Amino acid sequence: MKNILIATEKPFAPAASEKIHKILTKAGYKVFTLENYTNKSELISAVQGIDAMIIRSDKVDREVLDAADHLGIIVRAGAGYDNVDCDYAREKGVVVMNTPGQNANAVAELAIGLAIYGLREMFSGKSGRELRGQTLGLHGFGYVARNVFRIARALGMKVIVYTRYSKEAAAAIGLKNTHSLEELYRKSDVVSIHVPAKGVHIGSVSYPILKELNDNALIINTARKEVINEEDLLRIMEEKPGVKYLTDVEPTHKTLFAEKFKGRFYSTPKKMGAQTEEANSNAGKAAAEQIVAFLEHGDISCKVN
Amino acid sequence: MKNILIATEKPFAPAASEKIHKILTKAGYKVFTLENYTNKSELISAVQGIDAMIIRSDKVDREVLDAADHLGIIVRAGAGYDNVDCDYAREKGVVVMNTPGQNANAVAELAIGLAIYGLREMFSGKSGRELRGQTLGLHGFGYVARNVFRIARALGMKVIVYTRYSKEAAAAIGLKNTHSLEELYRKSDVVSIHVPAKGVHIGSVSYPILKELNDNALIINTARKEVINEEDLLRIMEEKPGVKYLTDVEPTHKTLFAEKFKGRFYSTPKKMGAQTEEANSNAGKAAAEQIVAFLEHGDISCKVN
Repeated sequence: MKNILIATEKPFAPAASEKIHKILTKAGYKVFTLENYTNKSELISAVQGIDAMIIRSDKVDREVLDAADHLGIIVRAGAGYDNVDCDYAREKGVVVMNTPGQNANAVAELAIGLAIYGLREMFSGKSGRELRGQTLGLHGFGYVARNVFRIARALGMKVIVYTRYSKEAAAAIGLKNTHSLEELYRKSDVVSIHVPAKGVHIGSVSYPILKELNDNALIINTARKEVINEEDLLRIMEEKPGVKYLTDVEPTHKTLFAEKFKGRFYSTPKKMGAQTEEANSNAGKAAAEQIVAFLEHGDISCKVN
Repeated sequence: MKNILIATEKPFAPAASEKIHKILTKAGYKVFTLENYTNKSELISAVQGIDAMIIRSDKVDREVLDAADHLGIIVRAGAGYDNVDCDYAREKGVVVMNTPGQNANAVAELAIGLAIYGLREMFSGKSGRELRGQTLGLHGFGYVARNVFRIARALGMKVIVYTRYSKEAAAAIGLKNTHSLEELYRKSDVVSIHVPAKGVHIGSVSYPILKELNDNALIINTARKEVINEEDLLRIMEEKPGVKYLTDVEPTHKTLFAEKFKGRFYSTPKKMGAQTEEANSNAGKAAAEQIVAFLEHGDISCKVN
């Protein structure tokens, strides 16, 4: 019989936990849980004899991996997986997965919420603008952007996209891919960023791109701060006094933005895009299903290492 | 030649003003403007010899109407028209119109923005909920509610409605009309209020209705404060510690709500639902078109007196 560990410093909500248990026990596995633990030693002893584990933001380093004498797979219920030493896991033959797309709707709803909040002058009572009729530029076209697209279209926005890796997905729904990132930023009233902090994307929102923005453009960033060259954005916001920046990822220069651009900058107090009951529950359920698919059929679709 | 006066203490935006002038001059009328005036005497002298006038929040009382020796029609560019003495205008044979529906999308976008803001715990960083999958109850089904419906459906919400006067419009799009207001409130995760402060609607959101709410319900009010029995809402928010109230209409007991229900109550600093460039521009354009339709063809579709 396979032994599955659910190790969560911050446990799943009861309803989510129940779903996860149901999926795993139905598959005939024995389920162990380690919740609210405060010391790595607890995790180290819990992983012994375990075949698969589900974690959340829990740190899985070399020491934990060395203690796991039987581990085949770790699934991070969520998108980011920098809490896992993926390289060392690979060395040890342990598959690492995340649960992509499960929080996409949560992040997309926040992006739309921030867009309304921004165009309506942060609910200050000042006259604002409507989303209807405006052009939304999607920088990237992954799971989150696709949800933003669905909602934005109903809001009566014209949607365009710049994507390197999802051209087919965009074309399949008739969405226009601009020729360059410059063109995307030039044609957009609202830009929503949906690329990861990897490779060419790092610092990609830089002066040559930003200078194309129209004078009243609104930038929404629910992705990663590393995508933006903050010095360049600060410079553009000086040069174009109508440009606004609203973000769910705390900028390195948050204080500068807040001081210099009152009413034009907003940052959530804590990254919260994926923080919904639904996203957590979906991710937990997906993690359990991915473990079953891996153990029963060797399915590695969501492998990240 | 007909003389048209645009009397606006708070002028239209330049682009809106240009559109209005174009419509009226194309119809062969002579257009006069009185902007940024500070004294009623200016309005009194401006209305002399005028056939039709467009106003915004400008006060048109008996004195102004008596001075208007030639006036056939007043169009209030906007929804509310309590700034006009409609009865006296009717006595004097002056038609009063508003421009219904022109700000509907603006208000609807704010209602959706407030719903996201509310379910995401006012962007506090705390874990929230998604709109997708929840049931939205529309209390009333006028122009604003119809726009909310369009957006909410794309957000993946289940939408239900309780309407007395728009049953056909709701049925035409397959929208379920509940049997009672109680049923609407009982079945909704989010209720959005879209009825005017008239007749049966005044105080209609009262204890017998509110006690039906589920424990995590969110109420959005972008309509009028008089629709809600505030004492009853205060009582329910004591009894059901998950119920939230977000409003664009300042409650009479605002301080009480704010003090007692931190994190569960939000009121915009100033009614701003209709305050968008687009709504103002649409309303001005509609006002000009309604004047032409009235003067040329006697069209009184939007008459309110």
